[in-house]
Amino acid sequence: MFYHDNELQYEVTVEEPDPRFAKMLQQAIGGAEGEMRVALQYMFQAFAVPADKGEYRRLLMETATEELGHIEMLATAVAKNLEGASDAQREAAREDAVIAEMMNSGQPRQALSAGLHAMPVDSNGVPFTGNYIVASGNLAANMYANVMAESTGRTLAARLWEMTDDPGMKDMLSYLIARDTMHQNQWHAALETMEDHVPVPNSFPQEKENQDFNYEFMSTTKDERPNPDQRWTQGESVDGNGEFSYGRQPGGGEPDLDEVIEAMHNEIN
Amino acid sequence: MFYHDNELQYEVTVEEPDPRFAKMLQQAIGGAEGEMRVALQYMFQAFAVPADKGEYRRLLMETATEELGHIEMLATAVAKNLEGASDAQREAAREDAVIAEMMNSGQPRQALSAGLHAMPVDSNGVPFTGNYIVASGNLAANMYANVMAESTGRTLAARLWEMTDDPGMKDMLSYLIARDTMHQNQWHAALETMEDHVPVPNSFPQEKENQDFNYEFMSTTKDERPNPDQRWTQGESVDGNGEFSYGRQPGGGEPDLDEVIEAMHNEIN
Amino acid sequence: MFYHDNELQYEVTVEEPDPRFAKMLQQAIGGAEGEMRVALQYMFQAFAVPADKGEYRRLLMETATEELGHIEMLATAVAKNLEGASDAQREAAREDAVIAEMMNSGQPRQALSAGLHAMPVDSNGVPFTGNYIVASGNLAANMYANVMAESTGRTLAARLWEMTDDPGMKDMLSYLIARDTMHQNQWHAALETMEDHVPVPNSFPQEKENQDFNYEFMSTTKDERPNPDQRWTQGESVDGNGEFSYGRQPGGGEPDLDEVIEAMHNEIN
Amino acid sequence: MFYHDNELQYEVTVEEPDPRFAKMLQQAIGGAEGEMRVALQYMFQAFAVPADKGEYRRLLMETATEELGHIEMLATAVAKNLEGASDAQREAAREDAVIAEMMNSGQPRQALSAGLHAMPVDSNGVPFTGNYIVASGNLAANMYANVMAESTGRTLAARLWEMTDDPGMKDMLSYLIARDTMHQNQWHAALETMEDHVPVPNSFPQEKENQDFNYEFMSTTKDERPNPDQRWTQGESVDGNGEFSYGRQPGGGEPDLDEVIEAMHNEIN
Amino acid sequence: MFYHDNELQYEVTVEEPDPRFAKMLQQAIGGAEGEMRVALQYMFQAFAVPADKGEYRRLLMETATEELGHIEMLATAVAKNLEGASDAQREAAREDAVIAEMMNSGQPRQALSAGLHAMPVDSNGVPFTGNYIVASGNLAANMYANVMAESTGRTLAARLWEMTDDPGMKDMLSYLIARDTMHQNQWHAALETMEDHVPVPNSFPQEKENQDFNYEFMSTTKDERPNPDQRWTQGESVDGNGEFSYGRQPGGGEPDLDEVIEAMHNEIN
Amino acid sequence: MFYHDNELQYEVTVEEPDPRFAKMLQQAIGGAEGEMRVALQYMFQAFAVPADKGEYRRLLMETATEELGHIEMLATAVAKNLEGASDAQREAAREDAVIAEMMNSGQPRQALSAGLHAMPVDSNGVPFTGNYIVASGNLAANMYANVMAESTGRTLAARLWEMTDDPGMKDMLSYLIARDTMHQNQWHAALETMEDHVPVPNSFPQEKENQDFNYEFMSTTKDERPNPDQRWTQGESVDGNGEFSYGRQPGGGEPDLDEVIEAMHNEIN
Repeated sequence: MFYHDNELQYEVTVEEPDPRFAKMLQQAIGGAEGEMRVALQYMFQAFAVPADKGEYRRLLMETATEELGHIEMLATAVAKNLEGASDAQREAAREDAVIAEMMNSGQPRQALSAGLHAMPVDSNGVPFTGNYIVASGNLAANMYANVMAESTGRTLAARLWEMTDDPGMKDMLSYLIARDTMHQNQWHAALETMEDHVPVPNSFPQEKENQDFNYEFMSTTKDERPNPDQRWTQGESVDGNGEFSYGRQPGGGEPDLDEVIEAMHNEIN
Repeated sequence: MFYHDNELQYEVTVEEPDPRFAKMLQQAIGGAEGEMRVALQYMFQAFAVPADKGEYRRLLMETATEELGHIEMLATAVAKNLEGASDAQREAAREDAVIAEMMNSGQPRQALSAGLHAMPVDSNGVPFTGNYIVASGNLAANMYANVMAESTGRTLAARLWEMTDDPGMKDMLSYLIARDTMHQNQWHAALETMEDHVPVPNSFPQEKENQDFNYEFMSTTKDERPNPDQRWTQGESVDGNGEFSYGRQPGGGEPDLDEVIEAMHNEIN
Repeated sequence: MFYHDNELQYEVTVEEPDPRFAKMLQQAIGGAEGEMRVALQYMFQAFAVPADKGEYRRLLMETATEELGHIEMLATAVAKNLEGASDAQREAAREDAVIAEMMNSGQPRQALSAGLHAMPVDSNGVPFTGNYIVASGNLAANMYANVMAESTGRTLAARLWEMTDDPGMKDMLSYLIARDTMHQNQWHAALETMEDHVPVPNSFPQEKENQDFNYEFMSTTKDERPNPDQRWTQGESVDGNGEFSYGRQPGGGEPDLDEVIEAMHNEIN
Repeated sequence: MFYHDNELQYEVTVEEPDPRFAKMLQQAIGGAEGEMRVALQYMFQAFAVPADKGEYRRLLMETATEELGHIEMLATAVAKNLEGASDAQREAAREDAVIAEMMNSGQPRQALSAGLHAMPVDSNGVPFTGNYIVASGNLAANMYANVMAESTGRTLAARLWEMTDDPGMKDMLSYLIARDTMHQNQWHAALETMEDHVPVPNSFPQEKENQDFNYEFMSTTKDERPNPDQRWTQGESVDGNGEFSYGRQPGGGEPDLDEVIEAMHNEIN
Repeated sequence: MFYHDNELQYEVTVEEPDPRFAKMLQQAIGGAEGEMRVALQYMFQAFAVPADKGEYRRLLMETATEELGHIEMLATAVAKNLEGASDAQREAAREDAVIAEMMNSGQPRQALSAGLHAMPVDSNGVPFTGNYIVASGNLAANMYANVMAESTGRTLAARLWEMTDDPGMKDMLSYLIARDTMHQNQWHAALETMEDHVPVPNSFPQEKENQDFNYEFMSTTKDERPNPDQRWTQGESVDGNGEFSYGRQPGGGEPDLDEVIEAMHNEIN
Repeated sequence: MFYHDNELQYEVTVEEPDPRFAKMLQQAIGGAEGEMRVALQYMFQAFAVPADKGEYRRLLMETATEELGHIEMLATAVAKNLEGASDAQREAAREDAVIAEMMNSGQPRQALSAGLHAMPVDSNGVPFTGNYIVASGNLAANMYANVMAESTGRTLAARLWEMTDDPGMKDMLSYLIARDTMHQNQWHAALETMEDHVPVPNSFPQEKENQDFNYEFMSTTKDERPNPDQRWTQGESVDGNGEFSYGRQPGGGEPDLDEVIEAMHNEIN
């Protein structure tokens, strides 16, 4: 079960509120590379770990819990970037700089639906979706999903870092980038504890996969080309179980479907 | 540009049509772990490769092209699993075994919307979405996304292999599993050519990330626990740039938002 | 503005409630081929018609209004197919035949979320989406969208008709199929009043389109094949403005992207 | 920030695993009435509370944290309902009763994508979406959203309670239903502390709303009917600011749109 | 069944067309707080009302019908805000002020897909979804969903009112805000006719819910805090059936999942 | 199976990069009227063609393959419109004109998620969805879906053509518009080969549809109006099988639903 403490995980300050940057930060909340995704992804992965693999469950759940705190930090950062105009006297809201920016930009719902606060959407305004979450039941596959999530997540945070001059925002992002560094390292470390896991899943017996095509780079260029002699077209395979080769698509005959039953009304004349 | 040849990439035969298995195969077409995702993911990644990295563009595009052929194979497999009743004489379609199965099961649209053929949806009936596609612009992040896609893809194919007794379907899946083995290996091979890429992106200078928290495992248990001495809580980090440590969430003070502007009508009394 | 009358547009009776058929009917309510789509599609198309084309606005709006009544009929049909067990005495709901069917089948939300009534979802359980609605601003394009909607709609209704033996349901579907016949005819009739509308939009001057490729069938087979002499590869074009020919993809040189700016962190080593 | 404790919030036991019930429970995890929705809804509402209304922030955040624990309980319940066959000896997975049920039913992804565990989807297999989350910035509107969420949530839990005979599941649901009772009460209690909040938002001056139509029940029947003398067509309004009356749609003239600019290519002939 | 009248429900005039405001108005058409949602929500709720509760069916259906007219008004308002440049002479559309605004802003599809008219999307450009619609089968739960929809809807309309200076738009919004006032009142009035409906559903016997936790505020702070003596932590519960108390999460032991069957290929080494 | 050639199908040049136009082009990639839709639509339609109708399969598949090349061209065009600033020396990315435009506009994910490249989303930033794809199993219905797709597609391309002054972009669009002209013509040509296909599906026997309402224009105006004597209210029907008439909605009695079973907890008091 979960607990909460009324402090943020790390300080969030904004010197000069910037509604455009608020919109960008939404990607790190509700986007494909965002914190809602990793928090819930690690949580659902943890939920599936059997009792005899408790150390992996704990690894996943502790980091899921950390990521919940990142959502909180970023939501605070969004709200602070949308503040700062509250005491102005004016007749119409559209003369307010923040609201004018909302009307110009691609995230009007931050004003219309959320009253100038964070939302569970990405920077394009698209809602968060459970589709982002990968929890396959296979721990090695999950770890690669996590390495990927933190790789795109750190790339996103680095891009955001480049887009702001605000010292508070740069400091917060410097913290989040550091955490992404750690998380990439810890998922790789977990993979190190699972020897010989490639190809995933390693419980499927390789002798049952087609032996003619499991280490061949299949060239699909229109006109045949000679082996380009790349790391992936020759030499030992990365998993150590085969030898890379270079070939063409085998071809399996033309598809030959029958008509389906009449009641489908697929016929034309 | 693309070309097509009227043969399948590999033979697709079905001895005993099974509408339930047709539904399962949809996951490998339009699902998060399916062929539409990888075909389009590799394609969009290739589209973004600059001219001076042509070998990576070719690697991605050739495999994207191969995956298009897998969609074609699987769509043929779905249609063949839904055939086989076309010459029966009957009054009402619902007495047909295939249609009865559609009515019972969770994929009625295969009859209602597609006339007993493949659709761009997953096995739960949910449409394919561009959300599945990861093309970050950063090649190393992309390769991890590809390793992940093939890891969950091979897990899916292995699970499907277990669910059928049909020799034709087992043979087709054995081929697809072999290709997933190769693809996992080739993306790993591409990563080998990018030295020192962890943490991704490696172009962000690590001295600008917060140095206190970039190699610390952050324990979030309610009550503090001693260091569990795991690979990810002590010793050299996987990227070789730091030393794992074990700590707690630092805490950053309470969030302190102001009221937003009146025109938002957030006030109550 | 709209009005309502407490009668259904056409009688809806169910002799033998069938929860499986209730699920199938959902496709005709909230599916891509369903009544929510056409009601809203015709409505949004009507909303865009300028004042000097009032007869088209009326055509669209009157039929939109008719389709609202079809949603009502189908929702009634769904509810009636889920009724019929209400007076049974039992300890646990799962022993009820209707609920058992919900648990077995692919539409459990009809029990869990809707208390055994119609929902704005399709037969796979996927929610209705504004994505289905085509309202392009160009009347001719819209009419083709409407012909298509009624063609797939009538195909759906015909398939549903085949899947039921219930006289009430067959009568209701016979009515809805008749309306689809009329609607296909009326959209075609509207197209007849727009002379020379192909290619749509006909306001774009054809001399500004590339004259070398506007009537050529572009063969993309891997190996060149001779002209198959089909209606679409030779002879006068359907719009009467050109002559069909048969050729190959022209080819436009290799893509040659530059590196993007450093701040994107796309680089690897 | 958040913390976690390796215990469930309340005991979860399953005596007789039931894969069909696992599917039903998904609605309480990733569905519109589920725990992901309320956990995140209360969290995003809390994120937006200004510092001078700290008691409301705490109310929302503490309950958000509680709901996270409900996701964990339900995910455990799903996994336990999908267990129980692990030691069987068999050749093909499809002979396994659990997998056979997945193939029959509408949630095959629980096997194919999640290896027989919980997923962030609803019982129809549709992914969780940020669309479910209501966090308007206005506290009174939010409280009504919360009353609604707990009302539909308790209805869902009661329906689930009826669909199982398993004592462990009945006990868990009895706990969750009790919490829904409390949560409904606490949101109502919060509304009691906001006097005169109807109509929401109460900061919009009512004298600026159209005074002719703000307390009139607008009858839209095709043929006029006499006032039915209901609570909502006569007598004092519930907010105490007006008197209910009964009338008809006023009518505002025909819409009269101009043609739009030529470059849109809306014209036909 | 439904009828239509070629007048708008209320006059819609725009003095100074404003493409940015057109975008904002989309939230009131296809957004979570918009008119498509309430029109269809009330309609689906009405479809589910049994014959012996006809007065509620009429209440819901008459207001659904009214809301259809609001979609029509708002779509007209969007089109009028995108007009006004039609007679300009120019070479390229991008020099047109309206189109330039579409290119700048976050709603380019209003030009590209709709030829400068209303669409079934929200102000962020996200399509309307059936997910917004709540029709639970339980009338009390539905009424709370309706109070919530009108509360967020009126908040949205008030925010829009603040963002425009156009007298025509202010007048139209003043009308819509008035209707939201009435609708909030009428749903509250309907709740008044359902005595003792809290907790919803009131047909579930409260003695079957867990008696230890149904009126306890469950504090989830990391460190225990004393009872803050709020309305929701002490005193009589709002439903009058219990006494509020203040406690902690009970704890239910560690989750203890078994391994699932081998055919899932969840194992690592 | 598919092949690829490292050339674009047609030359793509950009003289003056324009990030706003890059955003607009996204509609032609991942939008409802875009190339991903037609490529996959024609492909899924081809997958369903039985062996004895090979010429239609080839027609569909060859054009699907052509459209894949259009995605490639457009993705290149997007990337080129986002280039051009790569050698600037600067401290913060936000001073870069391209990134500033991303922050202003409605497509920030092109920077944040894709490092300034094409994405599988539309111009509003909404992800591509399988919902766009129509593949009904009935060839005539499919051809109308294709006519519609190319009609809205050519309208989109024409609008884009109007929005750019760049000679390279105008040339590329002139090519794509030409292809849309051909594709409209070829789908019409295919329809010509299917005689008497209206109403679709023509395999459903018209004598089984309700004979009273299959050629009647159903007027739904509130107050009856005389026959407006339009092409669709009198004279021979377009399919030649009937005579248009003009009437009113028949009416089918009031809906009369029973209460559903108690276990649904729909009751209030």
